[in-house]
Amino acid sequence: MRILLINPNTSVAMTERMVASATRSLAPDVELVPLTAPHGLPYIASRAESVIAGGTTLEMIAAHQNGMDAVVIGAFGDPGLIAARELFDLPVTAMAEASMLTACMLAPRFAIVTFSQVMIAWYEDAVALSGLQSRFAGIRVPDVSFRSIDNVQAELEAELVELCLRAMTDDRADAVILAGAPLTGLAAKVADRVPIPLIDPLDAAIGQAALLARLRTSPARAGRFARPPSKPGTGLTPALGSWIEHRAQRADTAPSTK
Amino acid sequence: MRILLINPNTSVAMTERMVASATRSLAPDVELVPLTAPHGLPYIASRAESVIAGGTTLEMIAAHQNGMDAVVIGAFGDPGLIAARELFDLPVTAMAEASMLTACMLAPRFAIVTFSQVMIAWYEDAVALSGLQSRFAGIRVPDVSFRSIDNVQAELEAELVELCLRAMTDDRADAVILAGAPLTGLAAKVADRVPIPLIDPLDAAIGQAALLARLRTSPARAGRFARPPSKPGTGLTPALGSWIEHRAQRADTAPSTK
Amino acid sequence: MRILLINPNTSVAMTERMVASATRSLAPDVELVPLTAPHGLPYIASRAESVIAGGTTLEMIAAHQNGMDAVVIGAFGDPGLIAARELFDLPVTAMAEASMLTACMLAPRFAIVTFSQVMIAWYEDAVALSGLQSRFAGIRVPDVSFRSIDNVQAELEAELVELCLRAMTDDRADAVILAGAPLTGLAAKVADRVPIPLIDPLDAAIGQAALLARLRTSPARAGRFARPPSKPGTGLTPALGSWIEHRAQRADTAPSTK
Amino acid sequence: MRILLINPNTSVAMTERMVASATRSLAPDVELVPLTAPHGLPYIASRAESVIAGGTTLEMIAAHQNGMDAVVIGAFGDPGLIAARELFDLPVTAMAEASMLTACMLAPRFAIVTFSQVMIAWYEDAVALSGLQSRFAGIRVPDVSFRSIDNVQAELEAELVELCLRAMTDDRADAVILAGAPLTGLAAKVADRVPIPLIDPLDAAIGQAALLARLRTSPARAGRFARPPSKPGTGLTPALGSWIEHRAQRADTAPSTK
Amino acid sequence: MRILLINPNTSVAMTERMVASATRSLAPDVELVPLTAPHGLPYIASRAESVIAGGTTLEMIAAHQNGMDAVVIGAFGDPGLIAARELFDLPVTAMAEASMLTACMLAPRFAIVTFSQVMIAWYEDAVALSGLQSRFAGIRVPDVSFRSIDNVQAELEAELVELCLRAMTDDRADAVILAGAPLTGLAAKVADRVPIPLIDPLDAAIGQAALLARLRTSPARAGRFARPPSKPGTGLTPALGSWIEHRAQRADTAPSTK
Amino acid sequence: MRILLINPNTSVAMTERMVASATRSLAPDVELVPLTAPHGLPYIASRAESVIAGGTTLEMIAAHQNGMDAVVIGAFGDPGLIAARELFDLPVTAMAEASMLTACMLAPRFAIVTFSQVMIAWYEDAVALSGLQSRFAGIRVPDVSFRSIDNVQAELEAELVELCLRAMTDDRADAVILAGAPLTGLAAKVADRVPIPLIDPLDAAIGQAALLARLRTSPARAGRFARPPSKPGTGLTPALGSWIEHRAQRADTAPSTK
Repeated sequence: MRILLINPNTSVAMTERMVASATRSLAPDVELVPLTAPHGLPYIASRAESVIAGGTTLEMIAAHQNGMDAVVIGAFGDPGLIAARELFDLPVTAMAEASMLTACMLAPRFAIVTFSQVMIAWYEDAVALSGLQSRFAGIRVPDVSFRSIDNVQAELEAELVELCLRAMTDDRADAVILAGAPLTGLAAKVADRVPIPLIDPLDAAIGQAALLARLRTSPARAGRFARPPSKPGTGLTPALGSWIEHRAQRADTAPSTK
Repeated sequence: MRILLINPNTSVAMTERMVASATRSLAPDVELVPLTAPHGLPYIASRAESVIAGGTTLEMIAAHQNGMDAVVIGAFGDPGLIAARELFDLPVTAMAEASMLTACMLAPRFAIVTFSQVMIAWYEDAVALSGLQSRFAGIRVPDVSFRSIDNVQAELEAELVELCLRAMTDDRADAVILAGAPLTGLAAKVADRVPIPLIDPLDAAIGQAALLARLRTSPARAGRFARPPSKPGTGLTPALGSWIEHRAQRADTAPSTK
Repeated sequence: MRILLINPNTSVAMTERMVASATRSLAPDVELVPLTAPHGLPYIASRAESVIAGGTTLEMIAAHQNGMDAVVIGAFGDPGLIAARELFDLPVTAMAEASMLTACMLAPRFAIVTFSQVMIAWYEDAVALSGLQSRFAGIRVPDVSFRSIDNVQAELEAELVELCLRAMTDDRADAVILAGAPLTGLAAKVADRVPIPLIDPLDAAIGQAALLARLRTSPARAGRFARPPSKPGTGLTPALGSWIEHRAQRADTAPSTK
Repeated sequence: MRILLINPNTSVAMTERMVASATRSLAPDVELVPLTAPHGLPYIASRAESVIAGGTTLEMIAAHQNGMDAVVIGAFGDPGLIAARELFDLPVTAMAEASMLTACMLAPRFAIVTFSQVMIAWYEDAVALSGLQSRFAGIRVPDVSFRSIDNVQAELEAELVELCLRAMTDDRADAVILAGAPLTGLAAKVADRVPIPLIDPLDAAIGQAALLARLRTSPARAGRFARPPSKPGTGLTPALGSWIEHRAQRADTAPSTK
Repeated sequence: MRILLINPNTSVAMTERMVASATRSLAPDVELVPLTAPHGLPYIASRAESVIAGGTTLEMIAAHQNGMDAVVIGAFGDPGLIAARELFDLPVTAMAEASMLTACMLAPRFAIVTFSQVMIAWYEDAVALSGLQSRFAGIRVPDVSFRSIDNVQAELEAELVELCLRAMTDDRADAVILAGAPLTGLAAKVADRVPIPLIDPLDAAIGQAALLARLRTSPARAGRFARPPSKPGTGLTPALGSWIEHRAQRADTAPSTK
Repeated sequence: MRILLINPNTSVAMTERMVASATRSLAPDVELVPLTAPHGLPYIASRAESVIAGGTTLEMIAAHQNGMDAVVIGAFGDPGLIAARELFDLPVTAMAEASMLTACMLAPRFAIVTFSQVMIAWYEDAVALSGLQSRFAGIRVPDVSFRSIDNVQAELEAELVELCLRAMTDDRADAVILAGAPLTGLAAKVADRVPIPLIDPLDAAIGQAALLARLRTSPARAGRFARPPSKPGTGLTPALGSWIEHRAQRADTAPSTK
C-alpha cells in the first residue's frame, strides 16, 4: 500500500524527520511517499498561512495522486483537508483530525500541547471543525520561546512534559496530543514521564490513512464529498486545473483494484 | 468612508451587478471600491474552490487595502474571511456571516435559499463556522437546473419564491437569506410574495462593514486575531509576501483617523 | 432616519449621557429620539427588575412608535426585546444582543466586563438567549463597590481596564463588551490601554438599528415574530391596550416608504 | 402544606377548572390556594403577553406569599418564573419547566402537543430556557381552529390524540406533554389511546412544588437566585414595591419551620 | 404507596442509614421497602463496578417488583437506571438523575460535591446522560482521604462544607448536590453553613418516585422505553430470565389500580 | 499482533461469520482470537440486554486478556466498552464507536442503517456517548420483519439498500454505517448500489484496535481511565474478581514489549 505524505511546509529537513519518525509504527505492507511543498512558507502557523498552504496542498495531490492508495496531510491544523476530500477520490487524512479521533478511543477527554502560542487559534479551529469540542480539554503552550524550530522538541522537552502533567491535573485531560509536525516522535520519548496516554499525530494520521485504504470504501459520488462539476479555471497549476476541469482522471487506481 | 468590495470570482459582470444592487441601501457617506479576482474560477461553488479563492482574496486585500476603511468579501461562503481578519488591520466582513448575524435581529430562526445544490456543503460550513447552528432552519435549493448564472435569479424566480415559502412552512424559518452573489437584489424584488423578512447578503455585508468602520475599534494586537509574526515566504505575490514578512504597513489609515 | 432610543430606567440623567455619547458614531442621516421610562426603577439590574421594565418598554414603544424607523432598547439585558419584536412592526435592537452580534465580526470570542456582580445572572441570560454561548468567554466584575452609578465609569476606570486585560489573558477573550448603560462611552476612552477591541453596546445597538432600517425588510406577517391576534386586555395603558387589541395601526410609516 | 396556585390569566373559570383537575393527584397533606390575575389578558398566548403577565405574577406573589410553603405559576410558558425565584424566598415552579423535568424521568425524548399555533414560539422559548433541547422532540398543534377556549379540550380531543400519535411515530417522542392550562386534565382522559406516557403539566408543577417544599432547602442567599439588593421603585403595587425595597419580609414562614 | 428502595451495594449498614435518613422528608402516605444487593461490591465507585451492579439491580427489581408503586435505585451514578426503565413497567428513579432534575428548579447551575476522586468519571457520565451539561458547574472532591466509608460524612464534614463554598465562589454554582449514598443526610446538617441550597439525592430520588407514582401515567408500550420482545436467556437469575422471556407479568399492580 | 475478538452474544455461528468476514481487510500481521459469550442472550438488542452483556464482556476479557495486544467488542452498541477501558490495561474498541469515528474521515455526516427497530434506542445511546451527535444523520430500519437473524442480511438486502439511499437523499447523510453484527460483510457486497461510502463496523473496530496497538501508548495510570483501586467482591467470576481485587496482573504483555 502506498501512502502519499504531503508536507505543506517548504522545509525538506522537516519532511525527512517526519518520515524517519513514522517508520516506527507502520504496518508491514505500508510504503510512505513523501513530498515537500514547492513554495509557500517554511513553517505554517496561522489561519492565514493555512489558507495559502491549503491551495498548495491541493496542487500537490493533483500532481501526485496517481498510484497512491491514500494521502496524509502532514501538518497539524489540516490545511486543505476538507477541500481535498471533496475534490479527490482517494482517502485523505490529516494530523489534527486523525489524532483527535484516535484519542477518543484512549481517553474520555484529550488535551493538546504544542510549542508556541501562535498556533492556538489555528488548532482550536481544527477542534471545532471536527465536532469534538465536548471531548476537548484545552490547549497548553510554553511561556518560553525557542531558538530553532528544527530543534524545538529537544529544547523545550522539560517544559512540554510539564504542560502534559498540567493538562492532566488542572484541565482534567485523560490523554494528550503532542501537536505540530516539529514535535513528531516526542510522544514515544517522554511517555514514561506522563501517566496518561500521549498521542503522536503523524503516527495517528498515517495509521488512519492505512485503515481507510484497507476498508476499500467507494469514493463518494453523491453528498457533501462528491466531486464538484467540471469548471474552467485561470491561473491554476496544470495538474490542479486539469483535475478541476475534469480533463484528468485517476489512472489504474480505481478503488476496486487497490 | 471607503469600502473595498472584493469579488473573489473572476467575472467582471458579476462585480458590476453587485455594485449596482448595493447602491440601494448605502448610507450617504459610504463609497464602494469594487475589485474583481484576477485569476481563479468564474464562479466558486465548493469548498475546494473556496480554498483557492481564499488565497486570492488575501492577495487582493494585501494589494489594495491602503486608503480603505473596511473590506467586504463579496461571496457567500466567505472565502478567506477568518484568515483576512487575522492577517490585516482593518474591519473585514463577508456575505454569509454578515447576513446570518443580521438575520438574528429579525428572526428567531433563519433559512438559506440558494440556486444550486452544489453549494450546500460549502454554505453549511459557513453556518457552522459562525456558531449559529441553533438558529439555523436549513438550506433549500431548486430541483431544476438553470441555463446561465448571469440570469439565474430571473430564470428561477418562481422556484426561489416557492422555496422561501416552504422554508417558512415546512422548516419553520422566520426569515430567509437569499444566498449567493448571483441572487443579489432579489430580496427586494420578491419581498411582497413572502410573509417573512428576506435578507440580501450583500446589503448586510456592506452595512456591517460600514458599522464596524464607524465604531472605530482598534485592531487586535493580541488574541486570536493578532497579526502573525513576520515570516519569509516563497512564491507569494509581492504585496502579500511583503505584508506577511512585515515589510509593509498600512499607510495613512490608522483607525484613529478614519 | 429617526430612531427611538428608549431608556427603560427612570433616570433622565442617564438618558442624557446616552444621547451625548451616541452622537460620536452616528451615520450622517440618523436622528435619535430619546425617551425615559415614566415609572419603574432608577437602574434595573436583575431578572425581576427586567420583567417589570420589559412591560414598561412595551408601553413606551406603543405610545411613541409613529414616525419612527427603528427602536433601540437602551439597557444591557434587553428588557422586552423579543416581546417588542413580536408585538411591533418596526425593527428593534437592544444593547446586549447588538453588541454580541457585532463582537462576532471582530473576534472569535468575546467577554463582558461590567461594574457590579448583581448584573451577572441577568447578563448571562442575555448571552444564552442569543445562542452565542460558544463564542462567549465569560463575565468579569470588580471586587470593589462604587459610590454613585452616575459616576461609576470614572470611579472604577482603572479596575475596569484591569478586568479587560484579565479577560484577555485569563479567559482568552479576543474582544470585550463594556456592558451596562452607565459605561456608555468608556470603550473609546480606554481603547489604547487594551490590545483587543473594546465594544460600546449603545453604539452597536444604534448602528444595528440603522442598518436594519436601511435594509427595509418587510415586517414578519408569519412565523415566530408575527403580530399576535387581537385580544382584549384589562388594566393596560391606552396605547398598549389599543395596539394589542388591534384598534391601532402605525401611521404613515409603512416599510415601503421609510 | 399550603401551595399558592397562581393563574396569571384573568379568567376565574379557568382557575376553577385547574383546581378541580389538580385534586386528583395531590399528596394527602397538600392544600391548594388558588388566585386569579386581577388584570391583564384572559388567556396569554405570546411572548409579549407573557412579559405583561410576568409582572402581574410578581405582584400576586408579593401580596400573597405569607403563610405559603411554595408557589405554582399556572401557565405553560412560565411567565415570571425565573424572576420570581430570584426575588422571593420560597420554592416556585411552573407548568412548562416542571412537566419537562418530570418527562425526563419517563422518557428519553418528550414532545409537546397544544391547541393553537399562536403558542409555539412562546413554548419553544420555555424549552430553550430549561436547557433540555437535546431531549425535545418538537411541538405539534392542530390545523383546525376552535370556538371556545373554555371547551377546547373537548372540541379538539380527537385531533389532539392524533397529534400525540404523530409525535410518537413521526417525531419519535417517547412521552407527550399536553400543554396549556386549557388542556389540564386531558392526559388522564385519553391515556388509553396513546401508547406512550402523557403528562399533565399542572399535576407535574404542583407535585414538584410539594417536593421542593418537603426538601426544606434554604433559600439562596448567594449566587444567581440571591434576592437583589434593596431599590426604591415608582409606580409599583404596594406589596411588590415594598418587597423590592426590602421593607417587607416573609412572616412566620422561615424555611426551618415549614 | 410502596416504594422499593434498592441498594445496589452489598452493605446492609448503608441500607439502614439510607432508610433512617429518608424518613425525614417522606409524604405521609409513602412506605419504603429497602433491599440490599445479595452479591457484588461493598461500595461501587467506578464505571466498571456500575456495569456489574447494573445487572444486579435488574435482578433485584425482577424479583421484588410485585406490589410496588415505584422503584428507587439508591446509588449516585444510577446503575441500571435506563435498562430498568426499558425493561420494567413501573416508575424508576435514581439518585444522580433525580437530584439534578430537582436542582434545576432551585438553581440556574448546580455543582456536585462528593468524598473521593475515584467517583468523578462515573458521576460525570451521569451528568452527560441526563443532557444537563449546560447547567452543570463541575464536581469537587476533597484532597484528603478518609478511614471508613461508614463514617466518611462525619470525618470529612469540614472539608465538604469548604468544597460547597468553593463550588459557589470559584465554579459559580447556585446549588450543590451532596453525592454518594454515604453522604445521605449531610445536606440538612450543614445547610446553615452554605448560603446556596444543598440537595440530598436520596430525598430527591424518593420524592420524584412518589411524584411519578401519583401521576399514574401508563407505562410505555411504544418508543424507546417499550418492553423489549421476549427472548430466551441462559445463566440468568430465575426472576430476571422469566421476565425477559415474558413468562412473568406484574401481578395486581396495573397502573390503573395503583 | 493478537486481537481478542469478543462476541458478547451466545451464538457461535455468529462468531464464525464475523471471523470469516473480518479476514478480508486485516493487515498482514494481525491474528484474530475469537471468543463467544458462555451465557446471556443469543442476540442482544436493547439497553437492558446490553447491561447484562456488559458484565459478561468484562468477565471474558478478565479471563482471556493475557497474550493479547488489543480487544474488540463485537457488538454494535458497545456493551461494557467504557467499563473495559477503565478496568483493563490494553486497548479496547467496539463496533459502534469505531465505525462512527472512522466515518468522520469519510463523510461530514453519517447515518446508521440496521435491520430491526428494537435496536434504535440502544444505538442512539451509543451515538450520544461518543459525543458525535453533530455529525449524525439518524437511524433507519426496515418496516418489514425477518424470519431468521442468521440470514437477515440476505433476506432484507433490497430493503437495506433502499434505506441507505433514503438516508442519503432524505436525511442528507454522506456515508452509512451498516450496523449490527448480523450485517457484517454486507457493506462490501452492496457498495456498488449506493453512491456514498458504506462502512462495515467490524472491519472498522478491528482496524482501529490494530492501529491503537501499533501506537503503543502507555495505559492510563491516572485520569478517568486509570484502573480503579483494589476492592473485594462477592459472587464474581474468579478471573474478574481477582482482577478487581488486584490479585492478578497481565503477564508478559507490558505495552513496551508488544
